[in-house]
Formats: sequence, structure tokens, C-alpha cells
Amino acid sequence: MSARAGIIVTGTEVLTGRVADLNGPWLAEQLRQAGVDVGYTVVVGDRPQDLVAALDFLAGARVDLIVTSGGLGPTADDLTAAVVGDWQGRASTPDPELEKRIAVIVEELSARRRWAVDPVAMAAGTAKQALVPDGAEVLEPAGTAPGLVVPGSPGADHPPVVVLPGPPSELQAMWHDAVGSPLVVRALAGRAEIRQSTLRLWDTPEAAIAATLRRLAEDLGDLEITTCQRGGELEVVTRHGVDLVERYERFQAAVVEEYGAAVFSTDGSTVDDIVARLLEKRGLTIATAESCTAGLLAARLTERSGSSAWVRGGAVVYSNEAKHDLAGVPVELIERHGAVSEEVAVALAEGARRELRADIGVGITGIAGPGGGTTDKPVGLVHLCVCGPSGSLTRAPVLGGGRSQVRARSVTTALHLVRQLLQDG
Amino acid sequence: MSARAGIIVTGTEVLTGRVADLNGPWLAEQLRQAGVDVGYTVVVGDRPQDLVAALDFLAGARVDLIVTSGGLGPTADDLTAAVVGDWQGRASTPDPELEKRIAVIVEELSARRRWAVDPVAMAAGTAKQALVPDGAEVLEPAGTAPGLVVPGSPGADHPPVVVLPGPPSELQAMWHDAVGSPLVVRALAGRAEIRQSTLRLWDTPEAAIAATLRRLAEDLGDLEITTCQRGGELEVVTRHGVDLVERYERFQAAVVEEYGAAVFSTDGSTVDDIVARLLEKRGLTIATAESCTAGLLAARLTERSGSSAWVRGGAVVYSNEAKHDLAGVPVELIERHGAVSEEVAVALAEGARRELRADIGVGITGIAGPGGGTTDKPVGLVHLCVCGPSGSLTRAPVLGGGRSQVRARSVTTALHLVRQLLQDG
Repeated sequence: MSARAGIIVTGTEVLTGRVADLNGPWLAEQLRQAGVDVGYTVVVGDRPQDLVAALDFLAGARVDLIVTSGGLGPTADDLTAAVVGDWQGRASTPDPELEKRIAVIVEELSARRRWAVDPVAMAAGTAKQALVPDGAEVLEPAGTAPGLVVPGSPGADHPPVVVLPGPPSELQAMWHDAVGSPLVVRALAGRAEIRQSTLRLWDTPEAAIAATLRRLAEDLGDLEITTCQRGGELEVVTRHGVDLVERYERFQAAVVEEYGAAVFSTDGSTVDDIVARLLEKRGLTIATAESCTAGLLAARLTERSGSSAWVRGGAVVYSNEAKHDLAGVPVELIERHGAVSEEVAVALAEGARRELRADIGVGITGIAGPGGGTTDKPVGLVHLCVCGPSGSLTRAPVLGGGRSQVRARSVTTALHLVRQLLQDG
Repeated sequence: MSARAGIIVTGTEVLTGRVADLNGPWLAEQLRQAGVDVGYTVVVGDRPQDLVAALDFLAGARVDLIVTSGGLGPTADDLTAAVVGDWQGRASTPDPELEKRIAVIVEELSARRRWAVDPVAMAAGTAKQALVPDGAEVLEPAGTAPGLVVPGSPGADHPPVVVLPGPPSELQAMWHDAVGSPLVVRALAGRAEIRQSTLRLWDTPEAAIAATLRRLAEDLGDLEITTCQRGGELEVVTRHGVDLVERYERFQAAVVEEYGAAVFSTDGSTVDDIVARLLEKRGLTIATAESCTAGLLAARLTERSGSSAWVRGGAVVYSNEAKHDLAGVPVELIERHGAVSEEVAVALAEGARRELRADIGVGITGIAGPGGGTTDKPVGLVHLCVCGPSGSLTRAPVLGGGRSQVRARSVTTALHLVRQLLQDG
């Protein structure tokens, strides 16, 4: 059995959806890499009794470690450290040295941002952040808030709790110290490695893989397989112990044999990774001309650092005038075929390639909705074209979902067309 | 006391962070609007025993209603309906009419996407999806999976459980039926309305509002106030009963008096809402030229439907050649001042305005990192310029966080500059 952990994400802003939770997923992946299985992520608001209920739940579920994020700031609604200390039956006392270190950080930060903050208010906040439960290890602040590892009280049979700040950059910077803390190392002793392997298929229905899994059921044994369809991509993720590597390899080979080129990734790479690798390896550059996606493809291509080596730029051609002015699409072509047409998608791809002097051009034009659809050209119809030195590919899917889904799926489809053109050509 | 609910999001892909949870936040907001307070969102993987533990936890926390999302698909790892039925002590039986309706939907879908699916596998999946626990209400499918409202068993003192599918578009389409279901209406009877009011401040530190809250503490009484800093924006969200409206209005007036123009929103509007409203009302158009943000601002401006009335388009000028070719920035200007400079930001804004024939132009150029920083121009330095008929604004903040945060904060800063130019001019 591997060690098990539970995650508690605190913050009314996360619970009510005003802020997306980036910490739960990130912590789950870090714990998995450390050989720890995460059973639950509980999101609670800033009410002490709800945080206590979540701690009780995870202790009752017999996890070996609890990790919390959020609630370490200077304001009165930031109460995680105090609540966790109480829950572990440990009184909190001020740590004067820690308080000084926090004060220095806060002063430097305020000076840099030219914030004029009332010194009394600032001192109250700093003093609050420097309260440490008895026996807890302090994790040095990456922003202004220190983290804590609060040991369980032997009487209550509670696991240790790692208390981390809410801002993702601070939490991530503190993780290395947290996972290396003696209390955490002891709690997770004897854990077994969990492998996670991912197959990604393009343009394959989930029902098909369900049939494959049923057919192979006897051979799969204890492999823990989950499937997930997102737009046109189907992800098959398997978690297994090191002793089941050969069994997994047989499963992977069976899927590759059955689905052939639809399996575009067996090593965890995303389509973004593959496209970036292909462009870099071949020394090719890319440029975009986007109407309905309006910059989303260019933004996604440049998410990774170093992408300036292959991304030349792009044209966001939301208006018909912009299609002409930036991508050189003839006005009469738009008038004849409509802005959402294969002809205009091709002209956009060729225009992007020509105007931005790139090797590969991508054109996207479609109806993202909710308005603007007709019987001939319904909402979700997107014309895509990718062209390069070795030829071009076009496609015109009718994509489902709302406006943002149609836009996101258009971008994913474009990336797959780029991948196919580069792999075939 | 208002009614209370708990949310369970199922799916190993969500628990492990491979898919962002869109349903928990959406459901929390819908429940709030229906006067229901959400205490917890629990994310669990696709293991039956973990789902049962989460159900037990929420029942133990005495919620009046549980809502689940996910786990209603045709594959064997989709087991929510069966687990919830068992947990409520209700045997499941096939509903032949429902099975026929699902089969029709699946056939139409497969035909439209030209998927060749094994009919035996398809029938097995459909039969699984048409199993209904005794006494449960069926919510008609919006995709292929029906939802359920499974009543509590009187013996176990369990609340009713609303079982919804995982794809956000299906879940959202089904919500109206779910919240109108007799079992749900009965469970939530007697609920009291919860108001949620939001103040948004630009360029104000959280420590400052913490001091304000301490000073006003006596006047605030039972107002439940949470503050949250995201980039340069500070959000102050207050939840309160209808009886506390006047108290909230006094609090809002005090904040507006203290912070003046930094308070850019008191009615829940985001900066995106305000910019769109200002552009639309004045009949002005906008165009962008983005280097480090590479299309993110254009994509954000076009997130809302109808934005084609004011967004002309944009140039993604990731390479220096693109800055010249698309936005007309003189090569010698880039050579003299560097690509990341006020001069180039101004030239980009003016170029976007000129080349795309827009009223407002926005230029962004910066160092998103992690590489490329120097002592003079560190990672996070972003030069922004917004220009229009009434003048221009420039700014050069050094933004914190990693690459994606620097990019996102640059976009938010640009939107605030557009807002300020339009509000002042």
C-alpha cells in the first residue's frame, strides 16, 4: 500500500468559484510524484468550523498526511494556522525572530510597490503571521507568509498537517522544504512508487475505448484505468504499481495496435509539446491568422518559454477589414464565399505565412456563437487550414458546446492539423 | 438559517489536475443564487469507496442537499449513479423507455461525427446509463447521460442527492430541471436569500483593506467579508442576509470614501465588463499589438459575444520582424531602445490603431520570463501603452510570478489602462 494524503483548499473565493483552484491539482501531482496517493481534495470557505470538519473527515479517512493551502495572510479571515494548531491540540506562541524576518519582507515589498501602509496595521498583520503552534516546523516564507508543518497530537490520532500559503507561486516555492521536512518524511515512510502512464488519442469516441477495455478486462487486472474525453481528444490514464509495468505495456501495445495513428501520444506529451518539438527539430517557423479564436492559438503556441525561436507572430482578424489589412485576404473572396468558408480559411493561412514570412501558416474562421448561426453555417462550424512547404490540410468540423468551448476546441483542432502536416510531410 | 448544500466532483482526471474543475464553482454560484449556502466542495477520484466517504462526510455535516457531478458515462469507471443508489439504500432497475431515448441520441451523435462504434458495446453503455434507483427522479439527458435526483432513505437520515453529468455544457443544461425537481424544492424549503456584494479595487494592497476592516470592525457586525488579491486587483466580497443591506451600504460608502477612484466596481462588474460597456456606449473600436502576451488581450476582449462591434482585431508581434511587418514599428526604433521599451510600446499602440483603423490602440511588450531578463530590464518588466483620440497612457510595472502570471497580469493592467483612458477622456 502506498501512503495516502488529503488536500484542503481554503478560501471562500475558491469555494464560490471567483478564483480557480490551481493549488489542489498542483499538490496532487507533486504528491503523486513523491509516491503518495491523493484520495480527496476538499474545498472549504473561510469559516473555522468548516475547516475543522474537513480536517476531521480526512483524519477519519485515515490519510497519512494532510496538506492545506490558503488562509495565511495578514487579514482576520486568514485563520488556517490558528485553526490547525487548535485542532492538533497545540497552543500558538509568537516567534519574535520570524516576526522580524516577515517585517523586513513586508517593508521591502511595500517600498517596491510604493504602497503607503499604516505601520500599526502592518505590525498587527506581521505579528499574526508569526504565531507558531508548539512543536510545529516553520517553512520560511516565499512571499510574506511562513508555512508550517504541524505534528499530530498522539492522543487524537491525527496525521501531521502541512500548512501552505494560497498564492500558487508562494506555495510552489515552499513545497521543496515541506516535502523534505522531518515530520513529513516520517509520515510518508515506506511509501511505494505509483506510476502514471497516459495515452492520448485524437478523434476517437470514448465509447470505442470502453469497448476495448471490456474486451481486455481479464488482462488488465489491477491496472487503474480512467478515460476522459475533452473535445476531440481522448485521454486514457493508467495508475499502477511498479510490479505491473509489463501488464501496462501489454495494454498500451493492444491500444496502439487497435487505434493506429489515432494514438498521438504514449509518453505523456500533449499536442502542444509535440508541435513545439516538431517545429524546433525541423527549424521551421509558424504564424497564425485567427478570426473566431482571436489570438487564443497564438497565445497557446507562446505559452512555453523559448517559443520565440519558432513563433513569428499572428494576425487577429476579427473584422473583415482586418482579414484584408493584416492577412491580405481579398475583399471579393470574403464577399463571394462569406467570412466563414474554406476559401477564407485557406487565404488566412496563406496570408499569415506570407505576411509574417513563416514556414507554416494557420487560418481559423468560424462561428463561435451564441449568435450568428444559420442553417447552412450553424454555430460551431469552424473552417481551419494549415499550409506549409509540403502542402496543406483543411478541415471544417461543427464543434459542440458554448462560445468558449468552440473557441478552445478550434485551437486544439488547429494544433492537431499542424501536427499531422508536420508528421506527414 | 439558510439551507446548506455540499458538492461532490468526481473524476480522477479532476482530482489529479489533468482537467480543471469547472462544475464545482458553477454549481456553487447557482446554489447561492437559489439562496443555498455551499459549505464544501469535495473532489474524489473514480473509486467507489472514496465517493461513499465523501457522501458520508456531507451527510454528517448535516447539509440539506448534495449535488454530484461526473461519473455518468458509458464506461466502467463511471459509477456515480450506482454508488449513490446503493448509498441511499435503493436498488437500481432498468428504465426501458429511457434506454430507447438514450440509444436514439447516441446513434444521432455517432452519425454526425462519423464514428463507427461496435453496436454491442454501444448497447452495453446505453443499458448502463438507463439504470435508475428506485424512487429517483430522472433528469432528461442534455448529452447522452441522464441525471438523477435520488431521495434519502428515511432510516439513514441522508439528504437527497442530485446526480449530474460531468461535461459542463450538459450539467448546466440540466440544472434548471434539477433545481425545479419536487425532491429538491422540498429539501430547500424555507431557505433565506443570501446577498453577495463585491467591491473591486485597482492597485490597492490587501494589507490596506485589512487595516480598514479592523478600524470598522464594530460597525461590520455579521457581514461575512473576504478579501482576495489577484495581480493588481483587490476583491472585497461580502455575503449577508437581506436584513443587513443597510449595514452593507454603510460599509461600501466607507470604502469608497477612503479609497476613491481606486474602487473601480461596486456592482459586481469586472474590468472586462466596464471596458466593453464604455466602448459600446461611445461607439469606439479597439485594436491591439501584443508581444509578450501574444494574443491573450485580443482573446480576452473577444470572450463576450457581440464584441465584433468594437474589436477590430490585433497583431501578435512576437518577433521583431512582426513588430515591423504588422504594426509598422520602425526597425531602428527597436534597435535603439530595445524591443521592451516605452518607445516600442507606444509605437505598437499607435501602429495597432493606425493599421487596424481603430479608435483605441493598445501596445504591450515585456519580458515574461523565465529567461531574457537583465539588471536593467528584469523578468516581469512590461511596457504598456494605450492611445486614443483624447490622448494616451503608458505604464511600466515589474510584475511578479511566473511566465503565465506575468502574461495574465499584463493583460489585466492593459484593460485598466483602457478603462482609465475611456473614463478620463
